Amino acid sequence: MRLEFASPIATVDVVLLTLAGGVLSVALFRRDKPPFEGSLALPGGFVHVEEDEDLVAAARRVLRDKAGLAAPYLEQLATFGGRNRDERGWSISVAYIALVPGIDPAPGREVIAVDDLPHLPFDHSRIVEAAVARVRNKASYSSLPAFLLGDAFTLDELQETYERVLGHALDRGSFRRQVEFQGFAEPIPGALRHPPGRGRPAQLYRLAGKRLKEFGRRMLA
Amino acid sequence: MRLEFASPIATVDVVLLTLAGGVLSVALFRRDKPPFEGSLALPGGFVHVEEDEDLVAAARRVLRDKAGLAAPYLEQLATFGGRNRDERGWSISVAYIALVPGIDPAPGREVIAVDDLPHLPFDHSRIVEAAVARVRNKASYSSLPAFLLGDAFTLDELQETYERVLGHALDRGSFRRQVEFQGFAEPIPGALRHPPGRGRPAQLYRLAGKRLKEFGRRMLA
Repeated sequence: MRLEFASPIATVDVVLLTLAGGVLSVALFRRDKPPFEGSLALPGGFVHVEEDEDLVAAARRVLRDKAGLAAPYLEQLATFGGRNRDERGWSISVAYIALVPGIDPAPGREVIAVDDLPHLPFDHSRIVEAAVARVRNKASYSSLPAFLLGDAFTLDELQETYERVLGHALDRGSFRRQVEFQGFAEPIPGALRHPPGRGRPAQLYRLAGKRLKEFGRRMLA
Repeated sequence: MRLEFASPIATVDVVLLTLAGGVLSVALFRRDKPPFEGSLALPGGFVHVEEDEDLVAAARRVLRDKAGLAAPYLEQLATFGGRNRDERGWSISVAYIALVPGIDPAPGREVIAVDDLPHLPFDHSRIVEAAVARVRNKASYSSLPAFLLGDAFTLDELQETYERVLGHALDRGSFRRQVEFQGFAEPIPGALRHPPGRGRPAQLYRLAGKRLKEFGRRMLA
């Protein structure tokens, strides 16, 4: 740095969301250094100017190094910055939302329902709150919940995922019409899921693209 | 800084929007130092860790110092950061959108229609593009365009402002019903605007609160 004045600390933090036990949940990691050593917090880290190409690359590196995964969906949430959020000094955290179909259990991490979180270090409670509000809002007019599913899913599983994120039931007929109209999920040719017992097999679907699709208006509100 | 590695440069940039000649326009300021000395660019500056309480305070300081104004509406847009956006080094810009009713002419600044911008230094073209997309989108479901008006306005002026931001005409009757239903503008008791000539005087309105109101769904799409 060739500036005459101090620069803030620059970090990225990731709100890593998944469905666990049918409820929207966030992955927290036990901090292995101060401040708040031993506490559960969002996975995050300093921007590495030698290594990271840009901010989203820094977020991807944090996810890879701390959680061992590559998120199919990663979106910048907002940036939190100020004098009092980190005892190490004036700090900036660029916060990202990541959605994944599942998180494997591992030592030093916990997956906790977003509506049942303890108070988190720094301003991480506020960051999670903003992330959950964004995800619930965006679920009503986009394909976002589909990123919480694996590579193949039935329409009933897709509807259940929307319902769990939105927090209310949806009409089966109009949900299916919407999915067809919006075209973000497509049938996988020849792929069926056979239910236990004698039930009818269900067609499996996949996302029609790797990017989020916004519907233009709130179809599922 | 007591870190063992380099920290990025941290700046705020403000996309200062207004209506000029009836079109959505952005205020650009001539840079008085390198890089890009002499070029028109967004008003911005380094975060001052000694002076700024938080990021929004830094954005307010930039607006006050560079444009001499306090914006009635200021919203964080997004954060742009990476190795190649500023020749001085790895840099982060936290970008804000400000809406103001008007910008006084002054040396070293120009107000240019957003659809008619030259290429801007750094990634400022991309930042303006993101700001305009956000404002146009948000106009369809919030009170946002009202922040481009002064303290008192008629319903026709309000509708015209929405139309200019959205880029299309709105039905007068349903617009008025929406304004009444949403309740974000309220009549100022006893305040009328007398048109030139013999026309009927029009009731003047003001914003019912200082905060943005979101309508829950796209009422004006």
